[in-house]
Amino acid sequence: MGDTQRLSHFGEAGEPRMVDVGAKNATARTASAHAFVAMPAAVLAALPSNPKGNPMEIARIAGIQAAKRTADLIPLCHTLPLSYVDVRIHTEPGGLRIESEARTLAQTGVEMEALTAAAIAALTVYDMTKALSKAIEIREVYLLEKTGGKSGDYRR
Amino acid sequence: MGDTQRLSHFGEAGEPRMVDVGAKNATARTASAHAFVAMPAAVLAALPSNPKGNPMEIARIAGIQAAKRTADLIPLCHTLPLSYVDVRIHTEPGGLRIESEARTLAQTGVEMEALTAAAIAALTVYDMTKALSKAIEIREVYLLEKTGGKSGDYRR
Amino acid sequence: MGDTQRLSHFGEAGEPRMVDVGAKNATARTASAHAFVAMPAAVLAALPSNPKGNPMEIARIAGIQAAKRTADLIPLCHTLPLSYVDVRIHTEPGGLRIESEARTLAQTGVEMEALTAAAIAALTVYDMTKALSKAIEIREVYLLEKTGGKSGDYRR
Amino acid sequence: MGDTQRLSHFGEAGEPRMVDVGAKNATARTASAHAFVAMPAAVLAALPSNPKGNPMEIARIAGIQAAKRTADLIPLCHTLPLSYVDVRIHTEPGGLRIESEARTLAQTGVEMEALTAAAIAALTVYDMTKALSKAIEIREVYLLEKTGGKSGDYRR
Amino acid sequence: MGDTQRLSHFGEAGEPRMVDVGAKNATARTASAHAFVAMPAAVLAALPSNPKGNPMEIARIAGIQAAKRTADLIPLCHTLPLSYVDVRIHTEPGGLRIESEARTLAQTGVEMEALTAAAIAALTVYDMTKALSKAIEIREVYLLEKTGGKSGDYRR
Amino acid sequence: MGDTQRLSHFGEAGEPRMVDVGAKNATARTASAHAFVAMPAAVLAALPSNPKGNPMEIARIAGIQAAKRTADLIPLCHTLPLSYVDVRIHTEPGGLRIESEARTLAQTGVEMEALTAAAIAALTVYDMTKALSKAIEIREVYLLEKTGGKSGDYRR
Repeated sequence: MGDTQRLSHFGEAGEPRMVDVGAKNATARTASAHAFVAMPAAVLAALPSNPKGNPMEIARIAGIQAAKRTADLIPLCHTLPLSYVDVRIHTEPGGLRIESEARTLAQTGVEMEALTAAAIAALTVYDMTKALSKAIEIREVYLLEKTGGKSGDYRR
Repeated sequence: MGDTQRLSHFGEAGEPRMVDVGAKNATARTASAHAFVAMPAAVLAALPSNPKGNPMEIARIAGIQAAKRTADLIPLCHTLPLSYVDVRIHTEPGGLRIESEARTLAQTGVEMEALTAAAIAALTVYDMTKALSKAIEIREVYLLEKTGGKSGDYRR
Repeated sequence: MGDTQRLSHFGEAGEPRMVDVGAKNATARTASAHAFVAMPAAVLAALPSNPKGNPMEIARIAGIQAAKRTADLIPLCHTLPLSYVDVRIHTEPGGLRIESEARTLAQTGVEMEALTAAAIAALTVYDMTKALSKAIEIREVYLLEKTGGKSGDYRR
Repeated sequence: MGDTQRLSHFGEAGEPRMVDVGAKNATARTASAHAFVAMPAAVLAALPSNPKGNPMEIARIAGIQAAKRTADLIPLCHTLPLSYVDVRIHTEPGGLRIESEARTLAQTGVEMEALTAAAIAALTVYDMTKALSKAIEIREVYLLEKTGGKSGDYRR
Repeated sequence: MGDTQRLSHFGEAGEPRMVDVGAKNATARTASAHAFVAMPAAVLAALPSNPKGNPMEIARIAGIQAAKRTADLIPLCHTLPLSYVDVRIHTEPGGLRIESEARTLAQTGVEMEALTAAAIAALTVYDMTKALSKAIEIREVYLLEKTGGKSGDYRR
Repeated sequence: MGDTQRLSHFGEAGEPRMVDVGAKNATARTASAHAFVAMPAAVLAALPSNPKGNPMEIARIAGIQAAKRTADLIPLCHTLPLSYVDVRIHTEPGGLRIESEARTLAQTGVEMEALTAAAIAALTVYDMTKALSKAIEIREVYLLEKTGGKSGDYRR
């Protein structure tokens, strides 16, 4: 692992620090992330039985709001002006699949914003279903795709 | 699934709502949660090379702070006075194992506080290692144990 | 207006201050509040045309979350442990009627929590409909009812 | 109501989402909003009797601070860098008239920031006068004026 | 320095942690703190020349609000229900003297709440006067007094 | 003191207001600030005895996070996109010396962000050492240096 791969969040003496993005140009950047909330079939079956609302709607909103608070939650993240955040949640056999997307025009990427949206949406689903089962589990929180920035595009 | 297992966060007409905990007694409650951050061996090897600090220390603090903000992040959670929050992070082959613990004297449990602490600690590790690999993944976010409350104790 | 009706948020020298509630007993308290979002018929007609979601659902969640942040928004409010918050939104000719409810076991009342929930729910409706009309107006933000506390119950 | 007037906060399938402003140019934008706090004459008469301070000063500050938190309160609002926020409060027969103003250089408008400032300033007045009367009411929360952006200028 | 004087915020292995206050009784506690903002005479003279408001009023409000957010700012602090917060600011030769006071009924003390109120009030004064001088300095941020709790009362 | 030196945070009628920075150009700006936490020798000696962590690490993180929340704490501050924040803490005879640095590309300076980082880092040290001594004191909170902006560079 070469010098350029040193953990960029740490200074020469190893002190924790925010990466200085001041010399970078603001460019269009996007990121999308994934999470899966695994739950027993009976819990999954109970989700759509609410006539006017369902946990997925609330989880979607919670994810969008959390994306906007990413820098408040992750100590070394930069505050970014998000131009767009979206969270999509689909029912699947075995649980709920969550995909988030974040976009910005900024000096640094929005991976953490997308991941935070997916994770908080997943925790919100957990909160609203936990009375039915303690075996619910959040899995596969990872980056699906990113575009923009010096390190180039990525697709899992 | 009987009537008593209806999703407690939804009213009779299905509208999203906070569970009314006003009639419950405040009792001692604890919860601990788990998360695993899977990462390539080269990334894991780079973690301890910081002489004065390391991502685990920052992640631990981020997790503790996030636990205190759980009700701000999860829409239908109650604000709780936590008497204790702790996050422990251990290096293992394949990644970092995170365990959190939350305690309160309150009318409702602290599962979400423990889970939020573990999840945000995991995201913080992700943030500080993501420059080295895009294959990092957060897995196995689940409840390890809870004590107190009407639904009884639980240990996974 | 007698001495006992002095504005309780101000000290003897008139300085702004928080009311000291330390000598009061914690008792059960509730409050409900009202707001109305007046909008043209065409805007109102567009609301239910969303197959999977609607602004009312998001506004309801925003109101609940705002209630939990009341002390962060209103400078001299006390931080209270809410045991319950609810927001209900109904379509009526001329607009949306919003009713909120907050409950606590505390040394001071929850009027501001209920009013903040109603007001932020109304602003959220405004935000999601403002592209269709600039004549939308929030009206009739008032207390519907309160129970508990030394000043007695009130019903408008 | 044509296709271009669809509620812009909702996707094709009706899911709640933030409007993508990434393709818009950042331009100068302003908005001002209005609110009125109606109160009995006796309550109004008590306001200026504080030698060193008065509720209007605190309400003004609360409104300015709330404007900066608009995106945290209104789920689908974008985080904006406000270049200016102002709140003015005047005593009138029957209550307090509140006018707010917000300015930015951004890809989207500041109507919600101005409205949030006015509404929270009004709630803060309510909080500090509610001990004297339960008949206080917040009315006429509306947009006074906006400039900038594709939809053009507006003056009520 | 004996064993009982070990830094209570660190565990046996030295990991940062919140002190567990779960076994303590909730008792009445108060704390008051001090800060001094030293500034050139010309800056000090400019303060009262504002007919309708002055930096001290805004600083007082900022201090009160900051006290309520102490646990959000200081990582290992517990969230406490403050029953009272007050900030007093006096002009003196050489600068502004700030005294804050916080009260609670809780399992742990409110020293940090009082100190945070004083410090943020001082920073707010700094913000509003910094255009006039860069030599302004915040000094003497310390605890004036505390009452309640196992460690007994203290007066500086 | 001439007219151009009027307190810029106040309008013509003296009302508190945010300075309008809309007409300024966004330029590179930096600021660094200083704070000193004076403590008895015995308390200072206890700091490094923690094998895995120490209060300085936590204080550094708290300072970085606080810098990002400056506009939320200081009422008339603008929200700024910080490109970099750093906090350095050194042990010295008599206490801990804290230096912070903030950088941005914005229409206004980052003095308050640097000062807030230093002050909150100092309060965090205080919190973690206060069990050992009540004589700890925060001193010398001042601006070390600033660059950029119309008022020119400054070095103390």
